Amino acid sequence: MTPLFLSLYDHEPLADDLARAIGADTAAFELRNFPDGETYFRLDADPQGRDVVVLCSLDRPDEKFLPLAFAAATARDLGAASVGLVAPYLAYMRQDRRFQPGEAVTSALFARLLGGGAEWLVTVDPHLHRIADLSEIYDVPARAVHAAPLIADWVRRNVQNPVFIGPDAESAQWVSAVAADAGAPHVVLQKTRHGDRDVEVTIPDIETWRGHTPVLVDDIASTAKTMIEVVGHLDRLAMKPPVCVAVHGVFAGNAYAELVASGTARVVTSNTIRHESNGIDVAGLIADAVLDVLNRAAR
Amino acid sequence: MTPLFLSLYDHEPLADDLARAIGADTAAFELRNFPDGETYFRLDADPQGRDVVVLCSLDRPDEKFLPLAFAAATARDLGAASVGLVAPYLAYMRQDRRFQPGEAVTSALFARLLGGGAEWLVTVDPHLHRIADLSEIYDVPARAVHAAPLIADWVRRNVQNPVFIGPDAESAQWVSAVAADAGAPHVVLQKTRHGDRDVEVTIPDIETWRGHTPVLVDDIASTAKTMIEVVGHLDRLAMKPPVCVAVHGVFAGNAYAELVASGTARVVTSNTIRHESNGIDVAGLIADAVLDVLNRAAR
Repeated sequence: MTPLFLSLYDHEPLADDLARAIGADTAAFELRNFPDGETYFRLDADPQGRDVVVLCSLDRPDEKFLPLAFAAATARDLGAASVGLVAPYLAYMRQDRRFQPGEAVTSALFARLLGGGAEWLVTVDPHLHRIADLSEIYDVPARAVHAAPLIADWVRRNVQNPVFIGPDAESAQWVSAVAADAGAPHVVLQKTRHGDRDVEVTIPDIETWRGHTPVLVDDIASTAKTMIEVVGHLDRLAMKPPVCVAVHGVFAGNAYAELVASGTARVVTSNTIRHESNGIDVAGLIADAVLDVLNRAAR
Repeated sequence: MTPLFLSLYDHEPLADDLARAIGADTAAFELRNFPDGETYFRLDADPQGRDVVVLCSLDRPDEKFLPLAFAAATARDLGAASVGLVAPYLAYMRQDRRFQPGEAVTSALFARLLGGGAEWLVTVDPHLHRIADLSEIYDVPARAVHAAPLIADWVRRNVQNPVFIGPDAESAQWVSAVAADAGAPHVVLQKTRHGDRDVEVTIPDIETWRGHTPVLVDDIASTAKTMIEVVGHLDRLAMKPPVCVAVHGVFAGNAYAELVASGTARVVTSNTIRHESNGIDVAGLIADAVLDVLNRAAR
């Protein structure tokens, strides 16, 4: 049977494109709050015997969790063959260890709660740091797809004479791979500490790069403080204003305006989170993974 | 070992009184949001081998759910002997059936999620309507205690010459019981429908009650629309301004100000939800139930 697709929060055009690409019917539903803040959810389609795919990006996760859990459980209660979750942005990937005694290891706890409501999960570039693979915290099949090739392609088509900037040694490997994919050079900022508050930032062979457009890439732009700091370094080094690319434009509070105003040529994000800076479309990337998961389950 | 007590959201003086009454140590903790909206929780006490009691009233349930789940799971991960939840106000008790096809039966779904994080639950006057007992939706032991005797006592001590008002036939039994407990009379509003929009509201033998102070009692004041309507009826019947009593002062949006301004002599609530209208203290009532649950578990 044709899968049934629900986009829990407004996420156009990604939602439409994704539904079309996986050949699913889009389900109508009602999701609202009662005056006392409780959530009301009503599915306006019959999920009986069908694979249900729920799209819900997990920025602002605390307020979205119960509505998502209610929607998924209701589809299952009404006889769905399976319920899977597409969370283009996956929350709670940072606190993956107890850094201080008594801390909640929220990445594992959130995974347990989220996995309790879905048979599978597809996400884009989860912030994997100490966790090497989602299977370490998710009991259900969790597939991560990667936006790097789309970023490389976007830069190739939109930035003349780019040079990718790695903000530190840690990022060097990843930045060099994306740069190679884009057929562009990359450099890594070098920091020399002269004292507690005196860090000199340089770029090797900087004269070579003065005519290039710097490209900064990160997985998440939340407060965007790291990116804004690098923009400042490049400005002091008399480089051109950079293009800033993030997979996930979370943009807490005023972060987007602050990043734009910091001296950037352009800020672009993928549409894992709906935002005016969206310029890189992950619909096809996600659709391939969803089709693969559904086909595997069907076998 | 002495139980460990956590009050997740500011709920004084109830929290202090409750901790003292159950002989628990109050645990310090840190609960805050990261800029991106994710929750950080750190327990600043060792729960190893101890019964942990978490106080968290569940007004605004959607935003409180994950923090509560994280706190409870962290206590358990750190070796708590048991984790119980005191939710003086329990959310999601209204949608206990699928009234329209496709609706989420949130009372059962919420119970399942909440019960997954606690070994037991104590609450005050849950809104039981079609559900006769919490055990129908909660798998874990769920104890409901009742504020009616405290309301009766408060009225006896604070209202001169009271007459309890039942807004409709449905409420008659409950209102008559509270009134009897307070040693006061009660009347039930009678509605005669003369047309679609023409409903006459009367009180039998109204002259008998003109010198009394009407007392309206309900379990939840959320929008308070029902109460405000009754206040209007009493005003048109030239009764004295009534005293309005609610167990749970949820007060969505501007509801409290609207209720006060509707012509009430006084609005009083119990402290199941912290609010300026709190006048009826449920600490002892809850403490007895918690002690009983902990003692049963210890046996």
